[in-house]
Amino acid sequence: MASGGGDNELEVSNKQVIFKNYVSGFPKESDMYLNTNGTIKLKVPEGSNGLLVKNLHLSCDPYMCNLMKKPISSTTNSFEPGSPIFGFGVAKVVDSGNPKFKKGDLVWGKSGWEEYSLITDVQNLLKIEHTDVPLSYYTGILGMPGLTAYSGFYDVCSPKKGEYVFISAASGAVGQLVGQFAKLLGCYVVGSAGSKEKVDLLKNKFKFDEAFNYKEEPDLDAALKRYFPEGIDIYFENVGGKMLDAVLLNMKTHGRIAVCGMISQYNLEKLEGVHNLVHMIYKRVHMKAFVFSDYYHLYPKFLDLVLPHIAEGKIVYLEDIAEGLESGPAALVGLFSGLNVGKQVVLVAQE
Amino acid sequence: MASGGGDNELEVSNKQVIFKNYVSGFPKESDMYLNTNGTIKLKVPEGSNGLLVKNLHLSCDPYMCNLMKKPISSTTNSFEPGSPIFGFGVAKVVDSGNPKFKKGDLVWGKSGWEEYSLITDVQNLLKIEHTDVPLSYYTGILGMPGLTAYSGFYDVCSPKKGEYVFISAASGAVGQLVGQFAKLLGCYVVGSAGSKEKVDLLKNKFKFDEAFNYKEEPDLDAALKRYFPEGIDIYFENVGGKMLDAVLLNMKTHGRIAVCGMISQYNLEKLEGVHNLVHMIYKRVHMKAFVFSDYYHLYPKFLDLVLPHIAEGKIVYLEDIAEGLESGPAALVGLFSGLNVGKQVVLVAQE
Repeated sequence: MASGGGDNELEVSNKQVIFKNYVSGFPKESDMYLNTNGTIKLKVPEGSNGLLVKNLHLSCDPYMCNLMKKPISSTTNSFEPGSPIFGFGVAKVVDSGNPKFKKGDLVWGKSGWEEYSLITDVQNLLKIEHTDVPLSYYTGILGMPGLTAYSGFYDVCSPKKGEYVFISAASGAVGQLVGQFAKLLGCYVVGSAGSKEKVDLLKNKFKFDEAFNYKEEPDLDAALKRYFPEGIDIYFENVGGKMLDAVLLNMKTHGRIAVCGMISQYNLEKLEGVHNLVHMIYKRVHMKAFVFSDYYHLYPKFLDLVLPHIAEGKIVYLEDIAEGLESGPAALVGLFSGLNVGKQVVLVAQE
Repeated sequence: MASGGGDNELEVSNKQVIFKNYVSGFPKESDMYLNTNGTIKLKVPEGSNGLLVKNLHLSCDPYMCNLMKKPISSTTNSFEPGSPIFGFGVAKVVDSGNPKFKKGDLVWGKSGWEEYSLITDVQNLLKIEHTDVPLSYYTGILGMPGLTAYSGFYDVCSPKKGEYVFISAASGAVGQLVGQFAKLLGCYVVGSAGSKEKVDLLKNKFKFDEAFNYKEEPDLDAALKRYFPEGIDIYFENVGGKMLDAVLLNMKTHGRIAVCGMISQYNLEKLEGVHNLVHMIYKRVHMKAFVFSDYYHLYPKFLDLVLPHIAEGKIVYLEDIAEGLESGPAALVGLFSGLNVGKQVVLVAQE
């Protein structure tokens, strides 16, 4: 459906995943809908220094369910009811009002869940320079989850060779990378996940030393004592709640906890209590929450490390690709019931 | 009651506070008893490199109630049933088997709750060089609580001028010092305590900007929002539980929590749940538990800072002195019901 004036004024159809209204508890597919009636001009408005991009790959990430809730304060973000949801994605520049980008550039950063987006906040948009890897990797291993894993493990955890590392939600986009970084450094690495298939992946594909299915462990404390009889030096926290409580009983002196996420808590009406914080004192535990966006300055150093490892097959990476924007809501919601195996991506369009 | 052979073999009466048996929940006075039948030779045994000391001041500290519980693992300490309890104290060397100390030296460090102690582990015993202050100060402002406040505030919290600082159990030995350090640095300082008398002290004697009685605040979150409308940069955590939960809702981005103690949790049969840890992620909060003994290397630097401030009256310090070893059990147990005002010390003997 093209209409309008000259070439530059081309207006095309623009399918969008629209957010219906604030959610409490678990998000459902029906909290979003596909709008097929929208159109967009493939041109940056006069005077704007933004970009008009064609979205190629969209990323499904756990933090996104927090954006479905009513903002808890003026400093937190939420999706806007009636507007497309947004997240990280890989896109191609169709028109640029910004001297840093030109038509044809590939970028990754925050974009909308729609075929085309007008991006006005280009500050944290990164140009993709290395294209000898699948472009979808920039939603994962080379994008936000990659930089999250890198900065969380190397900066927050201050890891040393030989240390004992535990990762929860370990088969997710971030966890699988943290585990591989830790193995490359010479750590002992155990991961937890929520299915036999994921546990097999951790052991066989990602080469963790051990992995277990937390759903089959009635006593998480006992499970951790089995895998870490001498205790845990580093816990990479993705789930929170009961797992954190069990971990706190098993930390070694001067242990470090990098708090990356607490997916078990995001969809609860009432947050679970963590009872064993007092054990932080007995073991002088250091617990730090972080987000990758405080670490953009490390991105070039991160690429220098990870690109050769990918090329040499020393780091493997698994994606779960849902095809078509219309499959997006189901893919996103599936994250919270653990349906995806590997990094969940939505393929909107081939380049 | 002196008996025995020559002068060096002098045996004297040695009253002791004996630990009866492991406690669960709140310790009571009756969990200890005074043994008045003991004797001790005022001489270090042949071949020992320990010290025989006369105890002058003994320190009552919150962590001691943890020593009354059954050890939770092989790496935790407990008092030994049937033996004297122990803690920090100021003592005078009566006989020395160690070249680093001589008879007449004043020391502070770990000693027994008794009139005389044989100290075999002298590694963390410090010689008192500055005696132009009350010797009891070495159980508090110049001892373990002082170094705790100093290392916790300056090292763990990385404070900056103008930051917003909240201290719980603020009238205690550590809290009153942290608040004064923070004021000296130019921070805005609010403290919580459990009585009107303590709140008045915080405001009038220790010059906190504000203070409140947590027992009179049905909604701690609302109280903190009143005192910190823009949020908290630094929380010096002494209590845990509900207070921590309320604080987590009010931290600023990149806020820091120094976990010094969680006195509200020490005597509970079942630990309270902390529900708002997920807010650490939203604000990238850094929470670190620490103990002063990791910071002995900072002790000289700490003295350089604090001694002139004491001399000039820029730091004030309040003690609550119980006279006589026999008053020790009541003084110690009183800590946990908040009876003491200022640092609780037991005076065993004048120098």
